[in-house]
Amino acid sequence: MARHAAKLDYPVSRIRRYLEPGPIVMVSSALDGRRNIMTMGWHTVMEFSPSLVGCIIAGGNYSFDLIRKSRECVINLPTTALTDAVVGVGNTTGAQVDKFRTFGLTPQPATRVKAPLIAECHANFECRLADDALVDKYNFFIFEVVKAHVARSPKHPETLHYTGDGVFMVAGKIISRRRQFRPELLDS
Amino acid sequence: MARHAAKLDYPVSRIRRYLEPGPIVMVSSALDGRRNIMTMGWHTVMEFSPSLVGCIIAGGNYSFDLIRKSRECVINLPTTALTDAVVGVGNTTGAQVDKFRTFGLTPQPATRVKAPLIAECHANFECRLADDALVDKYNFFIFEVVKAHVARSPKHPETLHYTGDGVFMVAGKIISRRRQFRPELLDS
Repeated sequence: MARHAAKLDYPVSRIRRYLEPGPIVMVSSALDGRRNIMTMGWHTVMEFSPSLVGCIIAGGNYSFDLIRKSRECVINLPTTALTDAVVGVGNTTGAQVDKFRTFGLTPQPATRVKAPLIAECHANFECRLADDALVDKYNFFIFEVVKAHVARSPKHPETLHYTGDGVFMVAGKIISRRRQFRPELLDS
Repeated sequence: MARHAAKLDYPVSRIRRYLEPGPIVMVSSALDGRRNIMTMGWHTVMEFSPSLVGCIIAGGNYSFDLIRKSRECVINLPTTALTDAVVGVGNTTGAQVDKFRTFGLTPQPATRVKAPLIAECHANFECRLADDALVDKYNFFIFEVVKAHVARSPKHPETLHYTGDGVFMVAGKIISRRRQFRPELLDS
């Protein structure tokens, strides 16, 4: 992957293409001159349109406060080329280090939110908090993806899928069964 | 994978091992002599203990009624050996076919719920509805996993991760970075 891949706008209603497979993602946030990145494996697509994503952000994370107060974040999709950065981001705290600088990640201005994109990631989804009804009880945030950027290539990058205990599964190989699907379940 | 793999009890607090990587799963349910299976790709782990899983079950599914009324289901984890069954289950409706019979899947009695396990799957997670606060608004169910069964082998089965449009990513290859992790983030 190019370090700063050229990206295209992508329809927000179709981001399940990237998130439904369940990759580990890096969530970037900013508030009052502070910024941070956290890794996140507990997330799910919830709706196509509006484009909703639900996720757990534990209260102990330095990012929790930034995201809850700014009501924004960016969900960034790393590929296996960024494995070291993913592991580093997940094993440090923004209270002690600037993760962009420490792990060589480049913050880029987003279009619709103040949180920065991570330039090196394959895709970036700009998010606004849509519903905080379950935050107090479960740390569960529901975001609306308001803008999506996806690298022009590769079409099927290798992604990391966290199992816990320091171990990732890698997904990248593709099986197409389009011909066995009902037409209404396929993209037009 | 053996068609009916020998399974062991598995700690419910550790099922993120299987669900956090984001595989497509098959959800089985039963109510008043009816039974069904649906595929599900929109799910997330929400807590270790109690073992919570949140997921979207759209109101149009035949399973919606069975699960909402019985307040139970089983989340079954298929491997790539079951790709044809997964595609079949996802492209038919329980209103018209018995999916167990049609796709050669074997219902097995569960321990803690009335919904059947799918014998051919690598793992089975028996679930009880824990919170329906977001069902009306988002079709979002929060289940507690009350019993888990996992096949003795293989340790890292190939799983299917749905991207939409009839295309799955396959995960199976493993990257371990345990030595780069903080001890408190690893299993004891």
